[in-house]
Amino acid sequence: MRMGVLTSGGDCPGLNAVIRSVVHRAVVDHGDDVIGFHDGWRGLLECDYRKLDLDAVSGILARGGTVLGSSRVQPAQLRDGVERARGHVADLGLDAIIPIGGEGTLKAARLLSDSGLPIVGVPKTIDNDIAATDVTFGFDTAVGVATEALDRLKTTAESHQRVLIVEVMGRHTGWIALHSGMAAGAHAIVVPERPFDIEELAARVGERFSAGKKFAIVVAAEGAKPRAGTMDFDEGAKDIYGHERFAGIARQLSLELEDRLGKEARPVILGHVQRGGTPTAYDRVLATRFGWHAVEAVHAGEFGMMTALRGTEIVRTPLAAAVETLKTVPDARYDEAGVVL
Amino acid sequence: MRMGVLTSGGDCPGLNAVIRSVVHRAVVDHGDDVIGFHDGWRGLLECDYRKLDLDAVSGILARGGTVLGSSRVQPAQLRDGVERARGHVADLGLDAIIPIGGEGTLKAARLLSDSGLPIVGVPKTIDNDIAATDVTFGFDTAVGVATEALDRLKTTAESHQRVLIVEVMGRHTGWIALHSGMAAGAHAIVVPERPFDIEELAARVGERFSAGKKFAIVVAAEGAKPRAGTMDFDEGAKDIYGHERFAGIARQLSLELEDRLGKEARPVILGHVQRGGTPTAYDRVLATRFGWHAVEAVHAGEFGMMTALRGTEIVRTPLAAAVETLKTVPDARYDEAGVVL
Amino acid sequence: MRMGVLTSGGDCPGLNAVIRSVVHRAVVDHGDDVIGFHDGWRGLLECDYRKLDLDAVSGILARGGTVLGSSRVQPAQLRDGVERARGHVADLGLDAIIPIGGEGTLKAARLLSDSGLPIVGVPKTIDNDIAATDVTFGFDTAVGVATEALDRLKTTAESHQRVLIVEVMGRHTGWIALHSGMAAGAHAIVVPERPFDIEELAARVGERFSAGKKFAIVVAAEGAKPRAGTMDFDEGAKDIYGHERFAGIARQLSLELEDRLGKEARPVILGHVQRGGTPTAYDRVLATRFGWHAVEAVHAGEFGMMTALRGTEIVRTPLAAAVETLKTVPDARYDEAGVVL
Amino acid sequence: MRMGVLTSGGDCPGLNAVIRSVVHRAVVDHGDDVIGFHDGWRGLLECDYRKLDLDAVSGILARGGTVLGSSRVQPAQLRDGVERARGHVADLGLDAIIPIGGEGTLKAARLLSDSGLPIVGVPKTIDNDIAATDVTFGFDTAVGVATEALDRLKTTAESHQRVLIVEVMGRHTGWIALHSGMAAGAHAIVVPERPFDIEELAARVGERFSAGKKFAIVVAAEGAKPRAGTMDFDEGAKDIYGHERFAGIARQLSLELEDRLGKEARPVILGHVQRGGTPTAYDRVLATRFGWHAVEAVHAGEFGMMTALRGTEIVRTPLAAAVETLKTVPDARYDEAGVVL
Repeated sequence: MRMGVLTSGGDCPGLNAVIRSVVHRAVVDHGDDVIGFHDGWRGLLECDYRKLDLDAVSGILARGGTVLGSSRVQPAQLRDGVERARGHVADLGLDAIIPIGGEGTLKAARLLSDSGLPIVGVPKTIDNDIAATDVTFGFDTAVGVATEALDRLKTTAESHQRVLIVEVMGRHTGWIALHSGMAAGAHAIVVPERPFDIEELAARVGERFSAGKKFAIVVAAEGAKPRAGTMDFDEGAKDIYGHERFAGIARQLSLELEDRLGKEARPVILGHVQRGGTPTAYDRVLATRFGWHAVEAVHAGEFGMMTALRGTEIVRTPLAAAVETLKTVPDARYDEAGVVL
Repeated sequence: MRMGVLTSGGDCPGLNAVIRSVVHRAVVDHGDDVIGFHDGWRGLLECDYRKLDLDAVSGILARGGTVLGSSRVQPAQLRDGVERARGHVADLGLDAIIPIGGEGTLKAARLLSDSGLPIVGVPKTIDNDIAATDVTFGFDTAVGVATEALDRLKTTAESHQRVLIVEVMGRHTGWIALHSGMAAGAHAIVVPERPFDIEELAARVGERFSAGKKFAIVVAAEGAKPRAGTMDFDEGAKDIYGHERFAGIARQLSLELEDRLGKEARPVILGHVQRGGTPTAYDRVLATRFGWHAVEAVHAGEFGMMTALRGTEIVRTPLAAAVETLKTVPDARYDEAGVVL
Repeated sequence: MRMGVLTSGGDCPGLNAVIRSVVHRAVVDHGDDVIGFHDGWRGLLECDYRKLDLDAVSGILARGGTVLGSSRVQPAQLRDGVERARGHVADLGLDAIIPIGGEGTLKAARLLSDSGLPIVGVPKTIDNDIAATDVTFGFDTAVGVATEALDRLKTTAESHQRVLIVEVMGRHTGWIALHSGMAAGAHAIVVPERPFDIEELAARVGERFSAGKKFAIVVAAEGAKPRAGTMDFDEGAKDIYGHERFAGIARQLSLELEDRLGKEARPVILGHVQRGGTPTAYDRVLATRFGWHAVEAVHAGEFGMMTALRGTEIVRTPLAAAVETLKTVPDARYDEAGVVL
Repeated sequence: MRMGVLTSGGDCPGLNAVIRSVVHRAVVDHGDDVIGFHDGWRGLLECDYRKLDLDAVSGILARGGTVLGSSRVQPAQLRDGVERARGHVADLGLDAIIPIGGEGTLKAARLLSDSGLPIVGVPKTIDNDIAATDVTFGFDTAVGVATEALDRLKTTAESHQRVLIVEVMGRHTGWIALHSGMAAGAHAIVVPERPFDIEELAARVGERFSAGKKFAIVVAAEGAKPRAGTMDFDEGAKDIYGHERFAGIARQLSLELEDRLGKEARPVILGHVQRGGTPTAYDRVLATRFGWHAVEAVHAGEFGMMTALRGTEIVRTPLAAAVETLKTVPDARYDEAGVVL
């Protein structure tokens, strides 16, 4: 058989491990041909690709980024390009396309699948918010990076006797905040799923100081928001340059807490470091398994599907189901963190 | 309520995280009292313990080892001590005992449970071979440590143009070998579940050199064995000092491969470094959840049970089921590693 | 003999290693008594201290922060408190005080020394800008943390095809920027010692893209500044909340480069994570040696001195010399980084 | 100008950083041509090389191993090949050769230099035992890896209540043992420079247990030896297979200590993991500076020299001096470790 693979969307540790695994399974075990499209959907639309043999994926397993490049393509562009894509698939004699990507990519994959193209998707997001799979690769690495940073920040917060508000990734869901906060023993965690009450948050942190503790760590998902009416919150706050990207939750929280507690409070924004670099062993194994099973799905002719982790098994789940709802942090998981605000 | 916690068996990253979580959930959220027995079952049998409050578990979340100490108690000792244990439990007014341990500990827990003591177990093993739970904490850390070592060894093997046989933990099961081998891209993995054929193994490694590659990495679980009759294997090999512990599989494999391939082959035995030190974020989260849910099981009066991970949920499973069979690496998982010997 | 030790100023990996080493050398080898003042100079001024024996320093070698606590005391406060300090030293029967701290602390140490108190200083700063010593502990850890972050960010920058401007610590000197930038292969490094020309910087980064590269990493010391007149730079820029701390060089550079290059440019501010957590082996060894030699200086009666590294030796150097000038990045070192703007 | 670079001897983190730096400095800054000989001296003797431009060294800075390959060539081979080497140098029009290697390589370099070839050496050894330079790259990484392992082993030793004897690299000198032992707070360190008395060692470790401690860590350089007559020591001990490589100091020490102390004692042999993988930031900076300055030496026509670190400066030192004596651990440094046996 002959299949094309592509990576789309933001960076995520484990992309190269999937690509390598697809090539190993397809080429070595099945004798298939594999090509890789450059820069995600763009490569498919413009028929820009290269052959992927064993040499092409040698040494990439542990490397961050994606050797195929990535890009963000607007849904409209892709919708307009369906016919072109079909043409390229036919010209190249492809039996399947394996797009590796997040929610947007999987929606696009569904669109192409619905139009009749043979698609097997591989889910990817450091945010872990795709409903149809227990876990996505990249998440463990992101949590690990955030936890290591929190471990380091704890000693500094203690020695400076201050509150640190550490902003981690997660615009729509609080998985990274929840897991890194639990792993590092944060004293409060705020997530998009549970709008916080600033007074309760301040009271909680204040109690720590009243109990003689010298510092507190608050972990905030970037999409965390105050409960309506409890804090003057400017969701679209822009800085003096008119850029909204510098007015995040960590900053606003640090100012609010400093005011209420009379303690120095500082924002720390971990940023892109969470989504780059070498994947953890966990993510490499998961990514490798996803790649292996994507090839198996192709050989089984099960198109319109996506690989997913359920317990310890890799299963196939319809692309349609995958993109219907976001997997949010349920109350029960939040309660386990011991941080009820 | 009033409960006692103890840790038993070999070291495992995450033990302190469980202890801390039990104390946080029980003391802060439920207003319970918690005591910790010293050195595992010994502490229970000799009524050697201390009170565990928040201060006692402050700062231990990320630390390896166990603040309560551990020991290995023979089953016979424990059997003889059941009455004494019952007496101490009564004297101390304990509503429950939470033993944290591996297969041996859980068997002992079942024994005590069958005798009527209120027990909620927490499974622990870096080997990941307890059947009733998807994963045990400690495993991810062990795999991570082994993978990091393999990453480093790869460059050295390449520069020296040699075969490295890397022995990782796993006397009865090959989970650490499988996951670290997959994560690091090992060229062969041998596990206890699948006795290897030395000729096939040598042929496979030899093919790599024939294909122009300059090195090969073989990952061997310490319990890996040759298929009967395929290699002169001395399971109980002793060294010149009469100690069997230095005659492991890595050493024998390195000699056999060197003979067959005419390439330098060297054993590397990772050893205890795999079971110590700070846990990964994954293990800290899992251990914390296990502790939290053990306390919930106590409050629900569900004794004779053990916490377990199923998918993304923590469930309770009978201790009896937990210790019946070992969870071994199934063929399907082994095949995914692309290493069929 | 009897000596008091204290830690003052910002957090710095290795403080606990010095404290432990002082206690080991003094108590075990010399039979001395050691006390530790709490929260830096405040502890001395208020006679707030505790005895430090071997148990007090057990297990702290690898831990970040300082078990003695720290604080920032204003020079004026200390000047007014000299007599009080002398009184406490006499009352406690101290033969020496060993303050561990940065430039401010060492200046204060000199003040007390000039007033006749027996002082042996130990230099500490992650910035590595104390002239009298080749290296200070904490610097290697800070560079290591920054380098690891840069390693991760590189794959992300590449996959997103953007410019990342990574702000590292260094208000007055560019040592962390220089070393982490060299270690990670940054494409441009800007430091306070060499005001940059924004047009040259943009041209240099632009050349990379013209040569077909997909990303660029610029490392900026927080104190880096444009050459006068070359860029509209607001040194005291304040954000919409009137706080200047969010308007750093990385942000301004990202806006300027985005404008000039037409490429997405993003600021990443590593922040406090650089000064916390477990020290590297290098810093632990240096800190341990400083502590050991500080005790030797006390026994030799060499007061008014500070420990310092010269080549591979630990020497004693007058406190006076230590605080006269800042050790800045010389042109020759900057040129080695291959980044001449 | 036109220069050839080669890497020779065992693996050492930082080799690629030197190669990259030579190419960057020579090609970009001077407009030189650089070629790389394959597999060390073999490449020179057989005129096996490739051109090294910027693309050839892209992305290798942080990678372990050497992209040029390495080999061990016998001195006699090289002596016989001097004329051939001269011929290749003439044919290729090389103005200089930059060999990167350890003691053996530098001796060979001197031989070639004495025969009139234009040589600038770059010293390399993880053992840090080259006298003419304060530090060699690779050493910091090796110490870091060993220290991280020791950190992990400490919790395990404590939980198992045992003595661990950890063997680190160092056949002739104890630098890695000294630094990693100091960094991790080992309870005893044995090095080749100071033959140990087994009774004193056992007594020292025994004291720890008498004082109520539950474990002890002994760090042993692989070349450590007992003082003559104090222990039955088989330097060339062979195992049951007739291989000497499994009868190291850690194993013999563990048996001797177990006998004398009645405590479980286990050997851990860190092995090759110490010399592979990504270099620390420290080693990357040092390796980069060595490469840069090697090119400067070539342009200055200073042949028969080697780059060296003195304090914070890179200097040139005659190859002759570099290989005269081994840099051993002086008593003063050993005493600082607080481990006087």
